[in-house]
Amino acid sequence: MTRFFVTPEEMLPEFLVLTGENAKHAKVLRLKEGEEVLVCDGQGSECLCAVSDISEGQISLVVKHRQESQTEAAVRVSVYMAFPKGDKLEHVIQKATELGACEIVAFPSSRCVSRPDDKSLKKKLERWQKIAASAAEQSGRGAIPEVVVLPSYTEALKRATRADKAILFYENERAVTLKMSLQTGDYRTVSLLTGPEGGLEASEVERAKEAGMDICTLGKRILRCETAPLCALSAVMYHVGEF
Amino acid sequence: MTRFFVTPEEMLPEFLVLTGENAKHAKVLRLKEGEEVLVCDGQGSECLCAVSDISEGQISLVVKHRQESQTEAAVRVSVYMAFPKGDKLEHVIQKATELGACEIVAFPSSRCVSRPDDKSLKKKLERWQKIAASAAEQSGRGAIPEVVVLPSYTEALKRATRADKAILFYENERAVTLKMSLQTGDYRTVSLLTGPEGGLEASEVERAKEAGMDICTLGKRILRCETAPLCALSAVMYHVGEF
Repeated sequence: MTRFFVTPEEMLPEFLVLTGENAKHAKVLRLKEGEEVLVCDGQGSECLCAVSDISEGQISLVVKHRQESQTEAAVRVSVYMAFPKGDKLEHVIQKATELGACEIVAFPSSRCVSRPDDKSLKKKLERWQKIAASAAEQSGRGAIPEVVVLPSYTEALKRATRADKAILFYENERAVTLKMSLQTGDYRTVSLLTGPEGGLEASEVERAKEAGMDICTLGKRILRCETAPLCALSAVMYHVGEF
Repeated sequence: MTRFFVTPEEMLPEFLVLTGENAKHAKVLRLKEGEEVLVCDGQGSECLCAVSDISEGQISLVVKHRQESQTEAAVRVSVYMAFPKGDKLEHVIQKATELGACEIVAFPSSRCVSRPDDKSLKKKLERWQKIAASAAEQSGRGAIPEVVVLPSYTEALKRATRADKAILFYENERAVTLKMSLQTGDYRTVSLLTGPEGGLEASEVERAKEAGMDICTLGKRILRCETAPLCALSAVMYHVGEF
């Protein structure tokens, strides 16, 4: 079923109106009167609606049923990624959204080659958020993951450790596996933190450990910086029973 | 440690010589006499060697120790992917190699838009095999996954079901999870089969079921055709204890 995202303010109880990009999209899809569509507020609520009227730039809908989204994961997983080079962050945002992450948080670490300046960042953040919205729509999600940018590794640690379980992946860790970490304790929120191309520094890993994070391996093979977060996210979703 | 791949014939017991691309690569890395390197035969055996002599286009090595590769997964996982559009197969070959697949098998299915003809296929296959070799080197693997192309879906089913466990992922499957399948039986070899952009046809899924494959879901969200195999592969590696 076709899925549209509107703002929470636009999610009215009985009648909804699609305008702007949504109306354009509906036109491309040649929606017909009576057809059913799903409208999501991007925060996990959705309405099953029927098209009641189609006019230029505006589609009117009748709300038939309102429900919590059925496609959001029960465990909220945040992906923390040190700024990578090139367009790898865009790739990770798209894939992590499909795989069910609730947010993607980018931050600088000491070996990051790429550090967007404040000026370019605003534009980039808009672009990244659009990628998340588009991937959420395509993959049938009920919520659009938020893309967050933090100014420092210190801020990343502070924020990541607010989750029930916070895990950092380090290529020099040999003993502690992700499975050991996930089998311990109760958690509804998980943070997964990975480094940039050159990896995290030993001192950065030490600080994460002191802040209470679990330091885990992702196996014997060296994963690229854009592969590691998606591999970890897939494994967490598998572990918590998503598939 | 730097890792070079040679042919099994070049893996001599006491002294090895790096030539061609390997010698060029060694020069770029500025290897010095006495330095240790790993030489792999691409099939799971490796030698710890010391550089004994460096001359134009040729690096001589003394074998110190020969061993089975430490970085290959205990379970051999084959990734079967219907031909996707564009360069997505290249992406999957690179990532599946990092994640530890033992082979990547491409085949046509009825909704494939892209079907390389025999003429272009030979060149493409060479390119794909190079991508696997390069990813194997970078990720520190002991074996280079083979890239295989099959002429039909029938051949793909026949080959995939030779594994101890053969799983097909289908977006319309709701009940059977990957976890249910992986928790059943003993297996040392696993096949994971996914469809093209438009998905597999119900009749194709039915044929796979009749051939003995497990039909599983990858969760409530719709994954892109290039995301699904990597998500599944990550989960299998996690399940069998790789990380």
